[in-house]
Amino acid sequence: MFNPFFKNYGPISISDIIKYLNIKTNKLKFDQEITDVKDLYTASNTDITFFHTKKYKDIAKNTKASFCITTESLKNDLPKNCNSLIVENVLVSVSKLTSKFYPDSINDNFDETAKPITETKLKDKVKFGRNVLVGNNVSFGSNCIIGHNSIIEKNVNIGNNCSIGSNTIIRNTIIKDNVRILDSCVIGKHGFGFFPIKNKNLRYPHIGFVIIEDDCEIGCGATIDRGSMSNTVIGRNTYLDNQIHIAHNVKIGENSILAGQVGIAGSTVIGSNVKIGGQAGISGHLKIGNNVEIGGGSGVIKNIPDNKKVMGYPAKNIKEFLRDNK
Amino acid sequence: MFNPFFKNYGPISISDIIKYLNIKTNKLKFDQEITDVKDLYTASNTDITFFHTKKYKDIAKNTKASFCITTESLKNDLPKNCNSLIVENVLVSVSKLTSKFYPDSINDNFDETAKPITETKLKDKVKFGRNVLVGNNVSFGSNCIIGHNSIIEKNVNIGNNCSIGSNTIIRNTIIKDNVRILDSCVIGKHGFGFFPIKNKNLRYPHIGFVIIEDDCEIGCGATIDRGSMSNTVIGRNTYLDNQIHIAHNVKIGENSILAGQVGIAGSTVIGSNVKIGGQAGISGHLKIGNNVEIGGGSGVIKNIPDNKKVMGYPAKNIKEFLRDNK
Amino acid sequence: MFNPFFKNYGPISISDIIKYLNIKTNKLKFDQEITDVKDLYTASNTDITFFHTKKYKDIAKNTKASFCITTESLKNDLPKNCNSLIVENVLVSVSKLTSKFYPDSINDNFDETAKPITETKLKDKVKFGRNVLVGNNVSFGSNCIIGHNSIIEKNVNIGNNCSIGSNTIIRNTIIKDNVRILDSCVIGKHGFGFFPIKNKNLRYPHIGFVIIEDDCEIGCGATIDRGSMSNTVIGRNTYLDNQIHIAHNVKIGENSILAGQVGIAGSTVIGSNVKIGGQAGISGHLKIGNNVEIGGGSGVIKNIPDNKKVMGYPAKNIKEFLRDNK
Repeated sequence: MFNPFFKNYGPISISDIIKYLNIKTNKLKFDQEITDVKDLYTASNTDITFFHTKKYKDIAKNTKASFCITTESLKNDLPKNCNSLIVENVLVSVSKLTSKFYPDSINDNFDETAKPITETKLKDKVKFGRNVLVGNNVSFGSNCIIGHNSIIEKNVNIGNNCSIGSNTIIRNTIIKDNVRILDSCVIGKHGFGFFPIKNKNLRYPHIGFVIIEDDCEIGCGATIDRGSMSNTVIGRNTYLDNQIHIAHNVKIGENSILAGQVGIAGSTVIGSNVKIGGQAGISGHLKIGNNVEIGGGSGVIKNIPDNKKVMGYPAKNIKEFLRDNK
Repeated sequence: MFNPFFKNYGPISISDIIKYLNIKTNKLKFDQEITDVKDLYTASNTDITFFHTKKYKDIAKNTKASFCITTESLKNDLPKNCNSLIVENVLVSVSKLTSKFYPDSINDNFDETAKPITETKLKDKVKFGRNVLVGNNVSFGSNCIIGHNSIIEKNVNIGNNCSIGSNTIIRNTIIKDNVRILDSCVIGKHGFGFFPIKNKNLRYPHIGFVIIEDDCEIGCGATIDRGSMSNTVIGRNTYLDNQIHIAHNVKIGENSILAGQVGIAGSTVIGSNVKIGGQAGISGHLKIGNNVEIGGGSGVIKNIPDNKKVMGYPAKNIKEFLRDNK
Repeated sequence: MFNPFFKNYGPISISDIIKYLNIKTNKLKFDQEITDVKDLYTASNTDITFFHTKKYKDIAKNTKASFCITTESLKNDLPKNCNSLIVENVLVSVSKLTSKFYPDSINDNFDETAKPITETKLKDKVKFGRNVLVGNNVSFGSNCIIGHNSIIEKNVNIGNNCSIGSNTIIRNTIIKDNVRILDSCVIGKHGFGFFPIKNKNLRYPHIGFVIIEDDCEIGCGATIDRGSMSNTVIGRNTYLDNQIHIAHNVKIGENSILAGQVGIAGSTVIGSNVKIGGQAGISGHLKIGNNVEIGGGSGVIKNIPDNKKVMGYPAKNIKEFLRDNK
């Protein structure tokens, strides 16, 4: 995918990549410029890709990439056109390389491009409070308002009729129409994703962003992290209460309702028309179906099919929960 | 009740109301100006009221209101002086009509009346940090202080000897004497109350406010929402730790202690001398008695009588909880 | 210990102390200047100490303090050189007296010494955003950055290569090298420690501070309270996700990972290489060993030895939890 927010500093020559990742190979016959790091499926012959689990064996067989970061045990599943580069830990190497292509996606230092909105052209387009800052590559549709002390850092596109509260910080985010974001939120920072290493953890890049669809409301004190390789998405007409945490890569469908202090861990996908009670938590990498209801305080640790009502920790059928706890 | 904070844009003629709510009636013999929307009990003959559940049948019989929004099946319980206006969903219609009387109570856009305290008369009355903003209809007693970047939006009355921290936002709130509100709180915004509608949820008006009684302390990062038709109240000498969420219409008694990250859902009433451990959650519309102790992490889903100690999810007698989990 | 942050307003004469604590004694033969309030072990003969539980009997026997606040039933365990001062509630009296020595440690009113960084010498040392404030006794190493609207209140020492986000407030804190603190945090305020008294709670002083060791990352919306008599410590290379609350006196070891919305109650000590899942809560005064893993949503209410994996509420062996909840 073309990344609208994070600059690709490539191309990088394959010889530099090999050196940077400390790979020993004598297979390299000629040098080549590499455009981007992509997954097995979307990579073209100017890209480098990666292959770290047998799960993707069938896709690997047909990759168009010229180079692939992989392991000794997986390399034989790659097609002839694709040169394997053998490393110890594929994901760590991919992370390092992605950081090389997208260095701006690692650390979320404050946006130095942000300046008072009164010094920008947006001052005539938007209604704003005191001490509002906006960074580079920020756009607004018509009829929007921003509260006091809020900071719209670089890489934010906001649609029509949106209201941003006070003391809120937004970056790397696409907001559609009629969205209301209340006070003291932090939206679009990198997720809590890194490789734990005893001397010093290694952060992996977050080149995704946050997408908030039409008609959403985001309560006070929310934190919504942007995606790592995909995006974090809040579906149309979904409402979030106060103090909610949405981790990176989470996707929530339409017309859903999340009560106060709910937390959703990374990469979980939630359907439409879902109701989640206060303080409920959902583990990472799960799939929650449509029309699901999750009782307040629940801890969800496995997938939930469509139309189920659950409660408890771990969450189970709500009738069962209430019967067992009479 | 007279509402000190939200302006009543009435009177509105009954013919306009009927048109606005899309009601078909041929009973209207003459037009009349309607002053306010009130409940069955407090409405006078210049008000419109509403009747949506058999539970209020006895009160309905004696209402003084001239008009009542209700359903076909309930209308016969109204007295002769009261004309029924039949709708499909009483609460949705009441919500729409209340929004007409109190349009400022729906959306909490930032307060455009807020300006630097240095440009107001309050600068001589209050000790304040840098970049403090105050809106219209804000008053302070003696010996108060406000920290840096805090915003006291319109409709806030603060007593004597109060300390407001930094980065805190307050609106539609009455604060009594000797109250301390720490940093990064958001107090007085509307609650998470709306009718879920697939195309676009319908927010209902929040015309109540927040009342914080004498000697309270509110920890960092608290969110305390104002009431919808009643108020949200924190009783005298009650202390809240950090990151607590108090939803709309909640009432907490005196001398209570709420530890970090506690959440109380809407309309729950909590007694005095209550202790609530960290991360405990209490569902909405419950009654928690006096001298109750709720263990950390508990999930309370039913009423608790006076003097009980509970723990667990769902919360039960604490001795039972500890015995069952040995 | 010498306190680098809170000014000791002593010495105070023992006659004034006796008067202030409303102690009746006729044993006082001559007056003496008292330098500080210290624990039984560290007090010198110019200090006053306190002894409130038999647990410390052996240490009491060897105290060097000239005076000791204690009770009738404990006084006979004190050595001859130490004069007992009998009170009803030892900890309340010590709290009152400590407040006399360290009056600045009770209430965290906003720092009046904070002023725009552009008006200080730090403007040439640090890279900073808009509207940054710094108080007295703030120092920075090389290569540090501070985001917009952040307030570094008095008594903060920051090392090299640190990044502070926007809208963050820090006071009474020592931050080592390569630390990243994200947006909207509040670090170093007093803990939730007080004596509950019906008329008006009595806050006890917090003369400790927060120490954040090398290479840590603190997520958005964190609250980390400083210690009361000891410090709150986050160990080297420990990462905290968003919306985490760390109470006073908590100590966390190295290389630990805390996911979103975790809460740790006061005085709990956590080892190194510990992983804590999202929304887990840990009660106060516990000891969690090294290499412990605590599942998301858990409620920990007793000590956990090294190398254990636990989950549940109350937390138990994770295999047992999963088996019991199949």
